[in-house]
Amino acid sequence: MSTAPATLAVPVPAARIRPAAARRFAESARTVPSLATFEQAVEDTRERVRTVTERVPLDRLNGWRHDEDTGFITHESGRFFSVEGLRVETQGPRAAWGQPIINQPETGILGFLVKEIGGILHFLMQLKAEPGNRNGLQLSPTVQATRSNYTGVHGGQPVPYLEFFQDSARRRVIADVRQSEHGTRFLCKRNRNMIVETTEPVEARDGFVWLTLGQIHHLLAVEDLVNMSTRSVLACLPLEGGAPHTGDEDFGTALARSLTPGSLELHPLANVLSWITEARTRSEMRAHTVPLDALADWAVSDGRISHQAGRYFDVIGVRVEALGREVGQWCQPMIHARAAGLVAFLITRVRGVLHVLMQVRAEPGLTDTAELAPTVQCTPDDCARLSPGERPLFLDLAQNARAADIRFDTVLSEEGGRFYHTGSRHLVVETGWLPEPPDFRWLTLAQLEELTQHSYYLNMQARSMMACLRSLFHGDAR
Amino acid sequence: MSTAPATLAVPVPAARIRPAAARRFAESARTVPSLATFEQAVEDTRERVRTVTERVPLDRLNGWRHDEDTGFITHESGRFFSVEGLRVETQGPRAAWGQPIINQPETGILGFLVKEIGGILHFLMQLKAEPGNRNGLQLSPTVQATRSNYTGVHGGQPVPYLEFFQDSARRRVIADVRQSEHGTRFLCKRNRNMIVETTEPVEARDGFVWLTLGQIHHLLAVEDLVNMSTRSVLACLPLEGGAPHTGDEDFGTALARSLTPGSLELHPLANVLSWITEARTRSEMRAHTVPLDALADWAVSDGRISHQAGRYFDVIGVRVEALGREVGQWCQPMIHARAAGLVAFLITRVRGVLHVLMQVRAEPGLTDTAELAPTVQCTPDDCARLSPGERPLFLDLAQNARAADIRFDTVLSEEGGRFYHTGSRHLVVETGWLPEPPDFRWLTLAQLEELTQHSYYLNMQARSMMACLRSLFHGDAR
Repeated sequence: MSTAPATLAVPVPAARIRPAAARRFAESARTVPSLATFEQAVEDTRERVRTVTERVPLDRLNGWRHDEDTGFITHESGRFFSVEGLRVETQGPRAAWGQPIINQPETGILGFLVKEIGGILHFLMQLKAEPGNRNGLQLSPTVQATRSNYTGVHGGQPVPYLEFFQDSARRRVIADVRQSEHGTRFLCKRNRNMIVETTEPVEARDGFVWLTLGQIHHLLAVEDLVNMSTRSVLACLPLEGGAPHTGDEDFGTALARSLTPGSLELHPLANVLSWITEARTRSEMRAHTVPLDALADWAVSDGRISHQAGRYFDVIGVRVEALGREVGQWCQPMIHARAAGLVAFLITRVRGVLHVLMQVRAEPGLTDTAELAPTVQCTPDDCARLSPGERPLFLDLAQNARAADIRFDTVLSEEGGRFYHTGSRHLVVETGWLPEPPDFRWLTLAQLEELTQHSYYLNMQARSMMACLRSLFHGDAR
Repeated sequence: MSTAPATLAVPVPAARIRPAAARRFAESARTVPSLATFEQAVEDTRERVRTVTERVPLDRLNGWRHDEDTGFITHESGRFFSVEGLRVETQGPRAAWGQPIINQPETGILGFLVKEIGGILHFLMQLKAEPGNRNGLQLSPTVQATRSNYTGVHGGQPVPYLEFFQDSARRRVIADVRQSEHGTRFLCKRNRNMIVETTEPVEARDGFVWLTLGQIHHLLAVEDLVNMSTRSVLACLPLEGGAPHTGDEDFGTALARSLTPGSLELHPLANVLSWITEARTRSEMRAHTVPLDALADWAVSDGRISHQAGRYFDVIGVRVEALGREVGQWCQPMIHARAAGLVAFLITRVRGVLHVLMQVRAEPGLTDTAELAPTVQCTPDDCARLSPGERPLFLDLAQNARAADIRFDTVLSEEGGRFYHTGSRHLVVETGWLPEPPDFRWLTLAQLEELTQHSYYLNMQARSMMACLRSLFHGDAR
């Protein structure tokens, strides 16, 4: 063996990061100081940071045009994103369809900066007003920036705190993984979900607040407050349930066990991965882009693109005027859902360990064919016309759940930069054991956490629901 | 909580699969019975199973045509695969280029059936003659079948043992993951790498043999014998190094420690994943297909497609006559490399634990931008013309290694169904500590094994090299 020159010192191997971080985040989840300061910050910021959004016809959007060559709606700079037509072919009940879809190939950053304050990990949260928000401010990650944002294409201000995500010397990485956005609305869109810790002194600027995980969990139960990007990144966080006493059989204990790696699991991970591989191999879904006016069931009327039966969503145009950090005024297309969505987790206890019924689901915009979705993911209004055999499995069970079985029930917004006044009811329902249809499996939260370390396993809705379910963890038996 | 009806019994949770399997495969690796029976089987099979491959001009390939609409070479049935032009744009020294590439969207199965015989796991290996093999038979997985194979498009015989991979009741899954094929030769091609165990009685048919992992490891040192698919699947196998004594400092012990999860590692996995995410986000590589005759540096002459400077590879035509299981006669295009490739692992010991210097590398045909590649992956002849600054890092170090530092050195074939007489030198060189350039990291074998549970982390060459390096594990100190 060659001998290394003495000047080339081998670096000191680093300790594993996740197990210790998982315990420290659990401690943060147990810590819920008063939210009075936070509420004051929201009031103060609401005055200074807001957007006024006005609907305008698509053909009168400054800076955007209908590209004659492609038939897409594009920005004149060629940047940002485009609205394209997508033709989808698959097997199954709805064998082929067309739809508009957003193509935004850039990978943005959704990042939490975390830091110990008084020995407890705190998250630097941003109070952000997005044009699609129904209610003005929402709680956003420290950094939520498209590549256009942070490379200055918008001509806006520099992105605060971005340096902690770009300069590896200034932080320790806890999670850093590209995750998909909605596979039915975006074409292969991925964002980089990051959690980084710093030990430098960091001051919360105007419009930013430090919160514990316990406080964020508390706020998740507030309608339309914790935004989609925050929920997405929260699902990538390591969170350890501890070692609950055997014999305790309450909900909190079952949840804590589910969060703990090494707890009993109905399906070993090798089988879960094989089930996903099988579904991806089997999927016959094929999609290709077409001009918007080649979509048979969609038409432009009243300056928006709508489904001819009034279903699903519209592509609308908006003019935005922003007060605060972002650049002053711009126009853009947005997605406006015709009705609220429903995402639901059915959960059950298997020998005292909480399991979630996950669905493997192909979506045309996903980079890798199919990902895990919540038990139910649909727009109930669009399902009303379906025959009983066509309705999504478990939809009726979730919608008709008794109040006593509902563990979480809050309407939360889709991403306010692309979705206009669009939200989904997030519902967690506890049930007895149910047998698994072929595309469904009962998994533990520790298994879901294992999967969110990697790209393309949990879709956006599943990550959002995972954040909601984990928010019920308080570290103590209930 | 609702109560489950008594008739819906919760299934018994299964034990974790991988840790126990990893120990059983280690036991199989330690077991190296005589290869006399195997050698006899090779002799017997060589008589009955072979292919005669004759080169024919591309424009005289029965069943294939130059598609006027697309400019691709396609099969008249629309099945199998096509040869397309690819235009690639990127940053860096070779900023844009064109090349032919194979588009084969179907996902095939590469699968080992394993079974305990005398308490030791054995692999059912197939002696397979592929048209591109230089030497006739090679050792293949139990099943190596494109979707066209196993759905009968070829009109051939049913694929033996396929039922164990398709019928979940007849096997236990140990690994099941879609992995990429060569990202410079195939467009988003993926195969399903599977290892399944059965307890049913299984007889080895003609042309199949049962081997222990130790025997396969032994045979990996034989030139052009263990085929590419076998190497790919071997890398997805869980293999545990045990708990070597502290203080032992020989190579075998350092290798065993590297195989054992929980051993010291230079970079925690969170940092490794972040480094990969960063590289994928940063990559500016964009590729789109173009007609073959739009490739500026490539031309058809003598019935093949060649680079005008005689570099890289040719696309040739062959007529194949097969004796044995497969259908009798067919024509197809193949890739013929102009010169042998080199894939090399530099390895070093960090505090007694073997680490491999891995490279993160973007390739135009990869589904997800960039994957981990060996330290060196190139065709040395094509690099000879490059200036010192353009030459691949570590190429000279690998090529000029002293014999005493070489741990593995064997020429092994690329996949003989698409590559004609094309092989790469597989080289493992032990070195002292070397500092890591930005796109390189020293990783343990346990970390690589963790990553091969998931798609798109290790490219084909890295998996092939991983199989070679792990073949040096005998379970005993050397």
